[in-house]
Amino acid sequence: MTAVLGTIKKLVNEPADVAIELVAAFADAHPDIVQRVAERVLVRTEQPAAKVGIVTGGGSGHEPAFLGYVGAGCADAVAVGNIFAAPSPDAIFASIEHADRGRGVLLVYGNYSGDVMNCRLAVRKAAAAGIEVRQLFVTDDLASAPVDESDRRRGIAGDVMIFKVAGAAAEAGGSLDEVEAVARTANACTRTIGVALSSAELPGAAAPIFTTARDEMEVGLGVHGEPGISTQKLGTAGEVGTLLAQRLLADLVCPPGSTVALLVNGLGATPLLEQYLVHQAVLRQLAASGISVHRSMVGEYVTSLQMAGLSVTLTLLEGQLRELLDAPIRTVAWCR
Amino acid sequence: MTAVLGTIKKLVNEPADVAIELVAAFADAHPDIVQRVAERVLVRTEQPAAKVGIVTGGGSGHEPAFLGYVGAGCADAVAVGNIFAAPSPDAIFASIEHADRGRGVLLVYGNYSGDVMNCRLAVRKAAAAGIEVRQLFVTDDLASAPVDESDRRRGIAGDVMIFKVAGAAAEAGGSLDEVEAVARTANACTRTIGVALSSAELPGAAAPIFTTARDEMEVGLGVHGEPGISTQKLGTAGEVGTLLAQRLLADLVCPPGSTVALLVNGLGATPLLEQYLVHQAVLRQLAASGISVHRSMVGEYVTSLQMAGLSVTLTLLEGQLRELLDAPIRTVAWCR
Repeated sequence: MTAVLGTIKKLVNEPADVAIELVAAFADAHPDIVQRVAERVLVRTEQPAAKVGIVTGGGSGHEPAFLGYVGAGCADAVAVGNIFAAPSPDAIFASIEHADRGRGVLLVYGNYSGDVMNCRLAVRKAAAAGIEVRQLFVTDDLASAPVDESDRRRGIAGDVMIFKVAGAAAEAGGSLDEVEAVARTANACTRTIGVALSSAELPGAAAPIFTTARDEMEVGLGVHGEPGISTQKLGTAGEVGTLLAQRLLADLVCPPGSTVALLVNGLGATPLLEQYLVHQAVLRQLAASGISVHRSMVGEYVTSLQMAGLSVTLTLLEGQLRELLDAPIRTVAWCR
Repeated sequence: MTAVLGTIKKLVNEPADVAIELVAAFADAHPDIVQRVAERVLVRTEQPAAKVGIVTGGGSGHEPAFLGYVGAGCADAVAVGNIFAAPSPDAIFASIEHADRGRGVLLVYGNYSGDVMNCRLAVRKAAAAGIEVRQLFVTDDLASAPVDESDRRRGIAGDVMIFKVAGAAAEAGGSLDEVEAVARTANACTRTIGVALSSAELPGAAAPIFTTARDEMEVGLGVHGEPGISTQKLGTAGEVGTLLAQRLLADLVCPPGSTVALLVNGLGATPLLEQYLVHQAVLRQLAASGISVHRSMVGEYVTSLQMAGLSVTLTLLEGQLRELLDAPIRTVAWCR
């Protein structure tokens, strides 16, 4: 039996190996959806015809992101880093090579310095190999930088909206220009903000990443424990939903009569029951602003290990976004 | 802002109202899949043609069970009780009435005394109204009674396998006799056992249901905190997966060469990452016994609020079970 490390009990083997073990375990669990082509790279089992390739990736510890979004109508390949760490340039390059079908590749990653750096190195290598790659770094986290510096914002749960839109556009036969353009529109139309009630604790670590007072919550905290924008008294589900909706609508211009997609995303330890109560309050606030919801998703889409809390994402459904979000998708994490 | 109750922070409103709020919030989030027909009753939005009706239900706090399993290819209606409490006979009767299409109704509930009692009262009322109802109480929890008293066993995560099989058989046009028979086969072929690492804490409660030592886990504990069969030192993912697989295979006879469906079910707070590491160890143990896995599911299917831990379910795929598990399903919790 293993020594107990840290303050939260965990079911792991060797802490240093969790990412590699995860990739193998995920592939062995879902052979009809994904196949492992390298230690840290998964690709679609049903290989698509000639189309624009979509690749994503990121650190592990955010499951079902990112490997849960590989499959028909979404990503073609994923590279997986260690817990909360960017994948290596080599793994990213391998994912690009596997996704390439001769029509170019769109890379969609969250906007983190480590991911950006390693993606750029991989893209340089891909260019040398004759593969055209465009890069989109998702910036939905409105709490991570002011609106006039939105290119500095990080990517959190809103990532999955961009994966879905890009994947559907590629599956429909769009050119690299078209797929990139609509994915950029999706990113520009997507905002996320959340509350954290407790911290994640890494496998093998002795303590959580941060602590919060017994009656407080952190607003706008990042999925790796990056500082938020305020510490507040813990609210009711109704208060939290209202607060988050107001913050979203102050940042993303949604005129009365507009339509959005809404994602309430659990961060790991918060029961689905509580996520639905918050969803209800968000829905009320949107209705009060004359905004209708075309589709709601509630559950764990991008987590932070066993962090308690949740985030709310809005995507304003401009142009083709609605039909692309409605298109078929068959991945482990998202299926319709 | 709300007073903080208990040792775990929660996002709720009035603790006494969580179940009713949940049902309304769930219906408002997924109007394309479910509709609310009473305060605690949801039905399918796309009403099916004449077919055997499938109804389920149970306490709340197990989300996505049970309301997440209403939809095409699964349950037609669900009745929702308070946290960890059986639905009322009136709610169950209303779910039966809505699911009735003139070909009879199969009621599938976990085997708990409160649920059994209230189901029987509802079925009596349905009989008086001229609706033929059969009752199946799921008994997959092998830790809850010895094998020779298996009709005393409780229903836990294996519930969802029975919902799926019954729903697919009804959707395919089976008679009430046929649907009941194959659902009973599914129950006879399904076993579950889990480990709990920490306890759930009810909304409004001052303390968790139980406590565990810092370096220990409870084997076979029920989803409402019912006592397990042993307290053991916390194991690695590999050790826990091996232990649970061995327990399952000692209870469910799976000859070499047989095929199973495998569900690793998170109880609420355990990261998906850890669930996959345990899944991998179960898979190895099954392979060593000459058993192949037709389909794996990993994630939160039947939870216990924010309990940490997971369970493993095996369904031996006899007769029609394989094709019924493969049939289309479109519910909030399970879609393929």
